[in-house]
Amino acid sequence: MTATEIPPRSGTAFTLDAGQTLTVIDPRGVQVADLLAYNRDDIREVISSGRTFDYAETIRLTTGHLLYSNRSTPMLEIVADDVGVHDFLLTPCSYDTFHHFYPDEPPHRGCFGNLAAALEPYGVTEDMIPVAFNCFMNVPIDGATGRLQVLPPVSKAGDRIVFRALMDLVIGLTACSAGASNGGSFKPIEYRID
Amino acid sequence: MTATEIPPRSGTAFTLDAGQTLTVIDPRGVQVADLLAYNRDDIREVISSGRTFDYAETIRLTTGHLLYSNRSTPMLEIVADDVGVHDFLLTPCSYDTFHHFYPDEPPHRGCFGNLAAALEPYGVTEDMIPVAFNCFMNVPIDGATGRLQVLPPVSKAGDRIVFRALMDLVIGLTACSAGASNGGSFKPIEYRID
Repeated sequence: MTATEIPPRSGTAFTLDAGQTLTVIDPRGVQVADLLAYNRDDIREVISSGRTFDYAETIRLTTGHLLYSNRSTPMLEIVADDVGVHDFLLTPCSYDTFHHFYPDEPPHRGCFGNLAAALEPYGVTEDMIPVAFNCFMNVPIDGATGRLQVLPPVSKAGDRIVFRALMDLVIGLTACSAGASNGGSFKPIEYRID
Repeated sequence: MTATEIPPRSGTAFTLDAGQTLTVIDPRGVQVADLLAYNRDDIREVISSGRTFDYAETIRLTTGHLLYSNRSTPMLEIVADDVGVHDFLLTPCSYDTFHHFYPDEPPHRGCFGNLAAALEPYGVTEDMIPVAFNCFMNVPIDGATGRLQVLPPVSKAGDRIVFRALMDLVIGLTACSAGASNGGSFKPIEYRID
């Protein structure tokens, strides 16, 4: 399958069958893609940062790690990763976070609004959107103080992360809308299902 | 009001009015209390680690920090804190996490099961339990590698953290059931509402 483009500052949703792989590509480099996953047969089961961190014993997830649901079920396995720096701490940028961090800019519905709109046909509501797995997002933590920073991704043009589905899923995926996440420019994301 | 005891390896739920304070006390030291908060008027609005980290720009939350909901509304303010080391990365310990981390011990429903049971009368279901604010839980992060450890709390007997409610809330609160969180012993937690 050829890659599908997600235009800048937008999002999409699609199904992924158990056993299929999802490749998320940063075609121009230094861009972020927020990823959500729901059990297709019961969307109340959703990707969980807290369960994943607990089992992985790290907040730095990369090849070989499993992404767990809120019911402790493995949903996705990371099977390849050109970058190794992703974020699973922060919720998707939203109208409210734009208002907070970019008070002088016209607010944007952000990845949160884009995900909510794309996932609505699957029955997902705004309140069912948890912390996303933010592909390529660079959020270093100072271990001594706990301080976090949102820095430009270290991804280069063409870099990708590949997930294998371990159950039938609904996926939400964005090309991030927040300037701080991607070094100040808005770029597309591409994905491929195999 | 005198303090109420939460017995070892159990949990409770109660309402908290806007303006009231909740004091969570570690009466013997080196124990953890998982805290959840829901909007009393619409329990789909719930405490959010991801929103809180984003606005606070730190994962180390203490006096002066606000705990936000998934709708970006401040729910609680930390107004006093004797300890300064709490966790907001991990979901409550559960039957599945016991099975994973303590395969040789009889599994316990854990803080997750205790919270689900205590919150059920308020309409909260298991799938509505997100990452909890884990009072006194000591989860240091290695900033370079992302590795996390679950170490005994640094709280001493009588240490407390005090929250002020910024909306009418339903609170879930536990005396933690997982050995690794509290140095291997199971102890009560106390709380007081003023």
